Amino acid sequence: MASESFKFGPYNIDSREVFYSTKLSYALVNLRPLVPGNVLVCPRREVKRFVDLTADETSDLWITAQKVGSRLESYHKASSLTLAIQDGPEAGQTVPHVHIHILPRKGGDFEKKDEIYDALDEKEKELTQKLDLDKERKDRSLEEMAQDAEEYKKLF
Amino acid sequence: MASESFKFGPYNIDSREVFYSTKLSYALVNLRPLVPGNVLVCPRREVKRFVDLTADETSDLWITAQKVGSRLESYHKASSLTLAIQDGPEAGQTVPHVHIHILPRKGGDFEKKDEIYDALDEKEKELTQKLDLDKERKDRSLEEMAQDAEEYKKLF
Repeated sequence: MASESFKFGPYNIDSREVFYSTKLSYALVNLRPLVPGNVLVCPRREVKRFVDLTADETSDLWITAQKVGSRLESYHKASSLTLAIQDGPEAGQTVPHVHIHILPRKGGDFEKKDEIYDALDEKEKELTQKLDLDKERKDRSLEEMAQDAEEYKKLF
Repeated sequence: MASESFKFGPYNIDSREVFYSTKLSYALVNLRPLVPGNVLVCPRREVKRFVDLTADETSDLWITAQKVGSRLESYHKASSLTLAIQDGPEAGQTVPHVHIHILPRKGGDFEKKDEIYDALDEKEKELTQKLDLDKERKDRSLEEMAQDAEEYKKLF
């Protein structure tokens, strides 16, 4: 996958951050995971809204998310998953490229279970800022992320 | 669709609550919608976890959600959508039958955008209670729900 390039909205994603891909979709690790195994699944084609995906892209995206979610849930010894698309700015989308948030969930991971969504929204804002402002990054290093991605690649 | 029967976990769903269906999936109105157009999309087959769906069911479910979301967003003059699966009890799932929550979103619909998820979780709890305890229902009547479903049917 080293020679492949991936776009996430306006951003170029280093292929070392990508741990699984199909012809139409790819899965990447997060700059700042909210919980262990918090990853994103995107269509390769840059489209803003979910409705803009073709039927083939929609199917492939969710079959990918299903596989990724299941393996990361086991890997992280979690017992549930949150799968969500914030589809459009009024739903909290900040990067204008369809993406599924996958979060392996465990008992007590967030005191009030759905604080995770507030946090998710905050992280999405941070993600944009971080990708914009390289000099202010306090995120994980590419090396750290590549390490995660290497681990996750072994699951597929 | 009058003679078709639909199951949502342990509950029988009146066919008048169902406004769209395919061979593998169906869309139903909500007992207590959080926002106008807040509906659910389910696989016809009763499975608890997202990973339990076949590839065909997964594709059909999300292509259905895409169509339903898009038409209800327009119908309710919204500008975004929240699409989420609470996959397993630790993610807030209370009815053990896979279901996608679809919520048309508008600017300012929730003061803090992701309070919608807290509310969604509360509603899921109420939904179970209401379906369990008929005598304590303060929900919309079947007639009200059937009226909504009739309107939505015209969109397909």
